[in-house]
Amino acid sequence: MQVAFSAEDIAAIVQPKSARGSTSATIRGLAALRDAAPGDLSFLGNQKYKADVAGTHASIVLLPADFAGDPQPDQLYLLVDNPSVALARICARIESLLWPKPSPGVHPTAFVDPSAKVSASATVGPHCVIEAGATVGERTYLQANVFIGRNATIGTDGWFMPGVVIAAESVIGHRVRLQPGAIIGSDGFGYEFVNGRHEKVPQVGNVVLGDDVEVGANTTIDRARFSRTSIGEGTKIDNLVQIAHNVVIGRHCIVVAQTGISGSTTLEDYVVLGGQSGIAGHLRLGKGTKVGAQSGVNGDTEPGAFINGTPAVAYTLERRLVVLYRRLPEIFKRVDELERHIRVTE
Amino acid sequence: MQVAFSAEDIAAIVQPKSARGSTSATIRGLAALRDAAPGDLSFLGNQKYKADVAGTHASIVLLPADFAGDPQPDQLYLLVDNPSVALARICARIESLLWPKPSPGVHPTAFVDPSAKVSASATVGPHCVIEAGATVGERTYLQANVFIGRNATIGTDGWFMPGVVIAAESVIGHRVRLQPGAIIGSDGFGYEFVNGRHEKVPQVGNVVLGDDVEVGANTTIDRARFSRTSIGEGTKIDNLVQIAHNVVIGRHCIVVAQTGISGSTTLEDYVVLGGQSGIAGHLRLGKGTKVGAQSGVNGDTEPGAFINGTPAVAYTLERRLVVLYRRLPEIFKRVDELERHIRVTE
Amino acid sequence: MQVAFSAEDIAAIVQPKSARGSTSATIRGLAALRDAAPGDLSFLGNQKYKADVAGTHASIVLLPADFAGDPQPDQLYLLVDNPSVALARICARIESLLWPKPSPGVHPTAFVDPSAKVSASATVGPHCVIEAGATVGERTYLQANVFIGRNATIGTDGWFMPGVVIAAESVIGHRVRLQPGAIIGSDGFGYEFVNGRHEKVPQVGNVVLGDDVEVGANTTIDRARFSRTSIGEGTKIDNLVQIAHNVVIGRHCIVVAQTGISGSTTLEDYVVLGGQSGIAGHLRLGKGTKVGAQSGVNGDTEPGAFINGTPAVAYTLERRLVVLYRRLPEIFKRVDELERHIRVTE
Repeated sequence: MQVAFSAEDIAAIVQPKSARGSTSATIRGLAALRDAAPGDLSFLGNQKYKADVAGTHASIVLLPADFAGDPQPDQLYLLVDNPSVALARICARIESLLWPKPSPGVHPTAFVDPSAKVSASATVGPHCVIEAGATVGERTYLQANVFIGRNATIGTDGWFMPGVVIAAESVIGHRVRLQPGAIIGSDGFGYEFVNGRHEKVPQVGNVVLGDDVEVGANTTIDRARFSRTSIGEGTKIDNLVQIAHNVVIGRHCIVVAQTGISGSTTLEDYVVLGGQSGIAGHLRLGKGTKVGAQSGVNGDTEPGAFINGTPAVAYTLERRLVVLYRRLPEIFKRVDELERHIRVTE
Repeated sequence: MQVAFSAEDIAAIVQPKSARGSTSATIRGLAALRDAAPGDLSFLGNQKYKADVAGTHASIVLLPADFAGDPQPDQLYLLVDNPSVALARICARIESLLWPKPSPGVHPTAFVDPSAKVSASATVGPHCVIEAGATVGERTYLQANVFIGRNATIGTDGWFMPGVVIAAESVIGHRVRLQPGAIIGSDGFGYEFVNGRHEKVPQVGNVVLGDDVEVGANTTIDRARFSRTSIGEGTKIDNLVQIAHNVVIGRHCIVVAQTGISGSTTLEDYVVLGGQSGIAGHLRLGKGTKVGAQSGVNGDTEPGAFINGTPAVAYTLERRLVVLYRRLPEIFKRVDELERHIRVTE
Repeated sequence: MQVAFSAEDIAAIVQPKSARGSTSATIRGLAALRDAAPGDLSFLGNQKYKADVAGTHASIVLLPADFAGDPQPDQLYLLVDNPSVALARICARIESLLWPKPSPGVHPTAFVDPSAKVSASATVGPHCVIEAGATVGERTYLQANVFIGRNATIGTDGWFMPGVVIAAESVIGHRVRLQPGAIIGSDGFGYEFVNGRHEKVPQVGNVVLGDDVEVGANTTIDRARFSRTSIGEGTKIDNLVQIAHNVVIGRHCIVVAQTGISGSTTLEDYVVLGGQSGIAGHLRLGKGTKVGAQSGVNGDTEPGAFINGTPAVAYTLERRLVVLYRRLPEIFKRVDELERHIRVTE
C-alpha cells in the first residue's frame, strides 16, 4: 500500500470540526494507537484506549470532538464527530487507490460464449470463461480466471476475484463480493450404497446467493440435490467454509472461517457461527443463535441461543464444565480420601 | 434449473405401471413430499414418509405400485416398481439438460504441449493447460482452466471441473469426477530441521486415483515423498479434505468434508470418515471402520470399529462419557455432601 | 515417476566410501526398508530401523560407513558418511527430472500489463495474468493460471504453482514456493454491525511473505485491515490453512494442515501448530510454543510451552485429564458406593 497523504489531504477527506498541533510528516500508513510510528495516522475509536492517545507516535490522530489533551511536537490532532466514520472515509479513499475502478468491457483473452449476455458496463478480465446462456449484470467485475457456468445469472455491481467458479444455473444477487477461489455450485455429496459401491445421487439443484452476500477465499458451496442451496441477503461467509447441499442460510448471518454446515440444515436470520465449528445435517438454528468456535452442534436451537463445545451445550454450562474438567484430578483424589476414611473408620 | 416437463414427458421417462388422477401443471422442480408446491414432482422413497403423501401439494407423486389412496384434484399419482429408481431416471434426464455432453476437441484458447497425447474424443475446454508428455483418455472432459502437469496420465470418461490442478506424474483412472478447485499432487509437507532452519525434504512420488473416484471442491491430495499416495477404486471424497503424502485409501471409502488424514496412514476398504475428523499419521484403520464427525483418531482400529470423540474411543463408550461429562457439576456436589457428612458424623 | 537408474548411476550420484555386493537391477523407485521391492533403492536413515536391513528386498541400500553385515544375492550395499544426505542427493536428481527447469520468457497465452516489470530470467507460464505495476524477480517461475495483482512485488527464485492468486500490493520474498491454489491477500473478514446489517470494514493493508516461505495448496492468507499480515522468513505452512488479517508469524514456524489463526494474533519464532488446531485472535504465542493437533488455544503462551486440547492446557495435564475422563464411569460408581455405604451405616 504505497499511500502518501499530506496533513492537508487528510483534513480534506475527514473535514474535522477543529484541529490541534501540526505535522510535516507524510502519512504512509494507518495503525492502532500503540503500534503507530511517525508517518502513521491513528484514531481513538473506542474509549477504552483513551489512555493510549498521550503516548502514541502517530503523526496524525483522529479524536472525538470533546477530547481534552494536547498533541506532542510534530503531531496533529483532528477533532471529528466520529473518529471511526472519519477513518472509514480515509479507508474508502485508500480502497479506491488500491483497487481503481476497472474499465468496462471484455478482455481479449476472455472467452464468452456467443449466447451469454454480458452488460456493456460489466468488466470481464483476462482469461475469464462465460458459458452459454449466462448473464452478467451491470458494473459487475470478473477480475481474472473467473468461470461462469451455463445459464448462471449474475446481478449488478458484483466483484468476483481471481479463480472464482460459478457452476451452471447458479443465481447470484446484486453487490455480491466473492474472494479468490470461492466455488459456488459444486456437486452435493450424496451417494446410495448399492451392491457394495457408492452410486452417485444426481445433484441437479442449484445455489442462490442473495444481495450483499460476501463469500471468502476457497470457500465451497454445494448445489442442492434438487431445489436450491440458498444464502440470504447480507450474510457474510469467511474463508475455507464448507456449505453442503440444500443448506438454507438466512439473512445477515456470519459464518467464520473453516466452519462446516452439513446438508439440509437451516440457519435463521442473524445466526453467528464461530470459526472451525461444525453443524450436523437436517437441523434448524433459531434466529440469532451464536455458536462458539470449534463447537460441534448436533441439535436444533431456540432463537437467541448461545452454545459452545462438542457436543455443544449452553455457553454458561459449557464454561462451568470446562472448569470442572480441569479439576478431575482433584475429584479422584477426594474420592480416594473418602474411601480410605471409610475403610479406616469401619 | 429451468426444467419444464409435462405429465406426458414424466410418464414417458418413468414408464409407470399405472396412474391415478391427472394434472395440467408443468413440472418445474423436484421436492420432498412436505416441501413440494404445485408444479413440483415428489416421491415416496421411504415408507416412513407415507403419511405425508395425502397432504402433499406436489402436482405429480411417484408411488410404489401397491400404494393405496387417491390423489387430490389436479394431482397425478404414478405407480411404479421403485419410486427411487424412477426418480433417478428423471434426475438423469435433468442432468443431461443441466450439463449437455460437450463436443469433443481442444478449445482454441487452451494450451496443449505438442508432446501431450489427447484423445480425439476428449474435450479440452477454454484456458486449459496440458504440459509435456501428459495423456488424456477417451471422452474425458476438462471443463475450463484445468491444469494437467508433465507426464500425468488421465483415464477415460473423466470430468474435471473448472480450476482443477493435476500435478506432474499423477495417474488418474477412468470415470473420475473432480469438483472445481481440487488439487491432485501438491507437495507433501516434509522438512528436516537443520541448523535452525526447516530444509525441504524432496517430495518426488506421485498420486494415483483409482477408477470411479470422486474428489470434492478445493480438496487437496499431496504427492508422496517417494512411491505414491493412492486412492482406491470407487472412493468418494468431499470438499476441503486434506490428504497428506503417502496416505493409502482403500476401495469404496467415504471421506466427508474438511477431514484431514496425516502422512502414511492407511485406510482399508469401506472406511467412512465423518466431517471435520482428523486422523494422525502412520495409522491403519481396519476395513469398514466408521469415525464420527470431528473425531481425532490417534490409534489403529480393528475392522468394523465405530469410534468417536477426541481422542476417539468406541462409540458407545464415547456416548456414555459425554453424558457423564455433563453431570460433572452433580458429582462435585455429591462429593461435597459426602465430605460434609463425614465431618459431621466424626 | 519414470526414473530408471543403474547401479553405476546411483554410485556416481552418492559417491560411496565403499560398497558390498552387486545388483543388475534398474532402480525405478525409492522405498522404506520394509516396503522395498526388487528394483527399489532403500536406506538406513534412523538406527531404530537397523534390524530391517537384513530382510529388505531393496536392490540397493544406502548404509552408514560403519554398518556391519552383508547383502543378499543381487543386492548392493553402498556405504556412505550419511545415508540421509546421500538419499537427498538422489532425490534432488529425481526432482530435476520431475520438474525440469523451465525456459525463461512469457508464454504467448499469458497476459502481462505493459506497466508490470518481469525479469528476463523469469518464466511466466500459460494463462498467467500480471496486473499493472507488479514486479517479478529473477528466475521466478509462474507455472500456469497464476494471478499477480496490481503493484505486487515478487522476489527471485520463486515457484508459484498453478492457480496461485497474489492480490494487489502483496510483497513476496525470495525463494518462496507456493503450492497450487494458495491465495495470498484475500480480504480480511471484518464488519461493523450497523442498523441490522454487517457493513464491511475496508481491508486496505497487505500481506508480506519473507524469504524461503512455503505455503500449501488452497491455503488462504488474508490482507491486513491496515498495515500488514506477515509471515517470517523460513516459515512453512501446509494445505488448507486459514491465516486471518493482521496475523504476524515469526521466522521458521511450522503450521500443519487445516489450522486456523484468528485476527491480530502473533506467533514468535519457531512456533509449531499441529493440524486442525485453532488459535483465537489477539494472542501472543511465545517462541518455540508447540500446539497439539485439533487444539483450541484461547490464551497467550510462554516461550517453549507445549499445550494440547480444547481449551488448550499444558500437554502433561491434558494427557492426565484425558485418562481421567475415560474413568468417569468409575468415579460415578465409586460415589454411588460411598453414598450407599453411608446410608447403610447410619
